[in-house]
Amino acid sequence: MMNFEEKTIRSKKIYNGRIINLQLDEVTLPNGKTSTREIIKHPGAVAIIAVTENNKIIFVKQYRKALEKELVEIPAGKLEEGESPEVTAIRELEEETGFTTDVLKYVTSFYTSPGFADEIIYLYETTNLKKLGEKKALDEDEFVELMELSITEAEKLMESEHIHDAKTAFAIQYIKSKGMK
Amino acid sequence: MMNFEEKTIRSKKIYNGRIINLQLDEVTLPNGKTSTREIIKHPGAVAIIAVTENNKIIFVKQYRKALEKELVEIPAGKLEEGESPEVTAIRELEEETGFTTDVLKYVTSFYTSPGFADEIIYLYETTNLKKLGEKKALDEDEFVELMELSITEAEKLMESEHIHDAKTAFAIQYIKSKGMK
Repeated sequence: MMNFEEKTIRSKKIYNGRIINLQLDEVTLPNGKTSTREIIKHPGAVAIIAVTENNKIIFVKQYRKALEKELVEIPAGKLEEGESPEVTAIRELEEETGFTTDVLKYVTSFYTSPGFADEIIYLYETTNLKKLGEKKALDEDEFVELMELSITEAEKLMESEHIHDAKTAFAIQYIKSKGMK
Repeated sequence: MMNFEEKTIRSKKIYNGRIINLQLDEVTLPNGKTSTREIIKHPGAVAIIAVTENNKIIFVKQYRKALEKELVEIPAGKLEEGESPEVTAIRELEEETGFTTDVLKYVTSFYTSPGFADEIIYLYETTNLKKLGEKKALDEDEFVELMELSITEAEKLMESEHIHDAKTAFAIQYIKSKGMK
């Protein structure tokens, strides 16, 4: 078992932002040489596979400025400070879709870009959706359009690259593996 | 069909690094208000599902400074400037695993963190591995340990969170969906 740990010599804060921070770490490599690592700190996020009683999955379409285009994704959102992923999941489900649930099943978690960022996504699924009487407010800079799609419809959007992000690609494969169409 | 486009008012470069750049975009929201978007520019990457003749998948274990721990992942690497993803895939396969191939099948692509980064991963698979006579050099700050695992073994590493990144989680589900064990 090799030990590849990279010890921090110094860490320099480059940027502290609304959502992400950037730091530059000078490290000692396993061979004793030094290098630098550019690291994005992110609060982490949740994503929810929400299946309706008609066996459709709820997606949200939103503009992604980093890509300069719209993507269709499963509902997701960042963890607030001190908030547990389960609480975030219910909050984002309510805000983005207008549904709530009292049955939330943890599916898995994964780091999205371990080469440069510590963002982790906790993935949940729910099948017991209840329409909220009054729709909750989105963040003031958030604009989304709801879509309910079958797996077959979602796969067509993957082919056309309207669905094109890792968490949603994983979610669709996960749902398919459970036999849903 | 709603239009959620966010028009750029101005874009400020915060950091130009070795691998990532950070910019802060001031944007006009669909409701006419303004907001800021923190955006990481990344060159993009490839990842390779490499299946040996014994029906094992090749993984690499490496230290991820952003997480301060080792992860087991499928082989992957960044696109060099002007390099096509197919060329990157062969280069990274050779550098990280000591195998090469003349059969490379495109699987899919996905953005890893569309909320704040433009990183895209192109995923390939190959089953026609050939051992290189001489192992190619890794990048000078790259240290990896090879592992060949069955799907069942890989799933155990997912449970213990030694495998814990989006591309590898997707890859394992993809391989499973093709009936491999």
